[in-house]
Amino acid sequence: MSHPQIITLITDFGLKDGYVGAMKGVILRINPEARIVDITHEVEVHNVFDAAFVLAAVYRFFPRGSVHLVIVDPGVGSKRRPILIETEEYYFVGPDNGVFTFVSEFSEIKRIITISEPKYLLPRISDTFHGRDIFAPVAAYLTRGVDPGEFGSPLKKYKKLRIPRPRKKGREILGEIIHIDRFGNLVSNITEESIGELLRGKGYQIIVGGRKISRLSSSYSGVKKGRILAIFGSSGFLEISVNQGNASRALSLGKGDPITVILI
Amino acid sequence: MSHPQIITLITDFGLKDGYVGAMKGVILRINPEARIVDITHEVEVHNVFDAAFVLAAVYRFFPRGSVHLVIVDPGVGSKRRPILIETEEYYFVGPDNGVFTFVSEFSEIKRIITISEPKYLLPRISDTFHGRDIFAPVAAYLTRGVDPGEFGSPLKKYKKLRIPRPRKKGREILGEIIHIDRFGNLVSNITEESIGELLRGKGYQIIVGGRKISRLSSSYSGVKKGRILAIFGSSGFLEISVNQGNASRALSLGKGDPITVILI
Amino acid sequence: MSHPQIITLITDFGLKDGYVGAMKGVILRINPEARIVDITHEVEVHNVFDAAFVLAAVYRFFPRGSVHLVIVDPGVGSKRRPILIETEEYYFVGPDNGVFTFVSEFSEIKRIITISEPKYLLPRISDTFHGRDIFAPVAAYLTRGVDPGEFGSPLKKYKKLRIPRPRKKGREILGEIIHIDRFGNLVSNITEESIGELLRGKGYQIIVGGRKISRLSSSYSGVKKGRILAIFGSSGFLEISVNQGNASRALSLGKGDPITVILI
Repeated sequence: MSHPQIITLITDFGLKDGYVGAMKGVILRINPEARIVDITHEVEVHNVFDAAFVLAAVYRFFPRGSVHLVIVDPGVGSKRRPILIETEEYYFVGPDNGVFTFVSEFSEIKRIITISEPKYLLPRISDTFHGRDIFAPVAAYLTRGVDPGEFGSPLKKYKKLRIPRPRKKGREILGEIIHIDRFGNLVSNITEESIGELLRGKGYQIIVGGRKISRLSSSYSGVKKGRILAIFGSSGFLEISVNQGNASRALSLGKGDPITVILI
Repeated sequence: MSHPQIITLITDFGLKDGYVGAMKGVILRINPEARIVDITHEVEVHNVFDAAFVLAAVYRFFPRGSVHLVIVDPGVGSKRRPILIETEEYYFVGPDNGVFTFVSEFSEIKRIITISEPKYLLPRISDTFHGRDIFAPVAAYLTRGVDPGEFGSPLKKYKKLRIPRPRKKGREILGEIIHIDRFGNLVSNITEESIGELLRGKGYQIIVGGRKISRLSSSYSGVKKGRILAIFGSSGFLEISVNQGNASRALSLGKGDPITVILI
Repeated sequence: MSHPQIITLITDFGLKDGYVGAMKGVILRINPEARIVDITHEVEVHNVFDAAFVLAAVYRFFPRGSVHLVIVDPGVGSKRRPILIETEEYYFVGPDNGVFTFVSEFSEIKRIITISEPKYLLPRISDTFHGRDIFAPVAAYLTRGVDPGEFGSPLKKYKKLRIPRPRKKGREILGEIIHIDRFGNLVSNITEESIGELLRGKGYQIIVGGRKISRLSSSYSGVKKGRILAIFGSSGFLEISVNQGNASRALSLGKGDPITVILI
């Protein structure tokens, strides 16, 4: 891979404090040419799954060689390892707590490194802010062409979260809602890949919050304004939406609530 | 116009999901040298007028050749057209739903293009996320110097919102509040251009929320802390403010509420 | 100092309006090569201390020569001066209202300039938005190498806020909470520098919100999940936190509440 220059940021730091700013300063001090791209700093506080989910939705759209920095780190200062993952296309830097769960789904892992080499870290490492003291400098040095192996020792495995997968039970596929987006769309864990083929040309019902939906729409405007619809969303998951409305509010549903597809 | 390199973003996507991040990735993959500038991702969900209003307040400050990407798109996947507008100074890319209403007010239109050429779009176009699949790639290719005519066929007109204009009725100018900003300033649709001259050296009263204001201030600090004032704001509209306070809360007023100027 | 290219932004403008976008446009129009870094636009409205606090937490991490633009400006249009501060390492641009209170703590002041030279400002200066009309252009011209002295006349002193400092009273150090961060951590005005040595190897109690804490943790995970702890945070202040929780909510404490360290 050629030198990466792009560093993307996903954190739960919010923007009202100076945490993100300090990280950006550290990066630019090490490599003033680095190009920092904010993905989000509004991951729900300490929610590792949310960070993993956003990362999965965006990383593959970036240029080959980009460094993805993901800092949702409730265990900072504990024994959880700081890691660097190199795949065929990207670098990933952050805590080994599950934020990289989906990385291996779209990209082949080449190396995993436990970060430990002091010369690439800030001189004084706090036990409360590894984003600034460890992860930001490592990302910045990567964009200066430092080889991943320089940052520490190889590691065989990294931590993955146990993800709720949909279950099959007779003619039913039992899924659940795993994400609510800003528009109130209910994103389920049922993928187009897993059931798209199954539904083609067949009869089916989608049951969610006591409602029955008997066909998939291909766009939000496939139903009248204010009506509920089911659709494979832009990340490939089955979603429940309301055309120009908010499905989460309309149905009073949230994360963890069930969604069932019945083949008939 | 020389190659633009700057792409500004105005969306209603918020930042908690990966939607904006995916668009940034798509842009940088096509042109790693593009310079992405976040204007706002906090346009009220599906509020086309708000997007048009923010765009109008900012676009003319950018360098000649900048690409303004505006994605507030409740009709994504319907028949509304994806368009590209070229003016004397800028490029505008987004849905043809009114977000570009004010573009022709400060900048002469050269060409309007319906975007259709597949080779400049993502290989697979979803019906739910044209920001990522259509608009981001078109903006990125513009910054690589692709001629606007390459993206599709010319179009004669584009959609403009019907904007509430102030009415004159005898000695009264009847306006309304069209925007509340973060500081609680009540921004009306009455412009300095339209009434500034009229008021010079004359007596007048401004009536809003049952209050009478009998002179214009030239700065917020023109009245005591906590007092109400009327002022031509930084975008040229007549605004009602409270010095170091929040006029919207103090007067319990919001969008659509009337504001009247009476010449006496 | 070599040409700076980096301009950081700290404002209370929020991102829903076009205020920040207009400033970015003005900067890029004057210097298309300037690199704009968002620190925060979510400083509490009109809260000069908050802006000063965030600036203090981040500025020293940036590369030598960076321009720090800080616009929290309730007195815009009044007699408060627009200033430029040059230190050994950085440039600071904004209103002379206290936002630069901590600048001299980590960086030696070289020059203070009252901004007045019209040729470096927008042609028409509003009395409501100096961020766009005065401060953004000055920052941009600094990144083009204009000497600070060109912008106006030297000034001897600039305004500093009176900061609540902890008081010593017998065996007690009486501090207070000066900031609540996104995680609910209670940041006090007691620094590691001032009491770290004092506590080494001694017995002490930290009293806050009716609770007693009898030792300092070195990381959040030094106590069980959900437990209260005291720690020197990443900016060097004594903080009260809850491991993976929110101390402000758990203890119902906020800014201005007392925190006392008793040596025993």
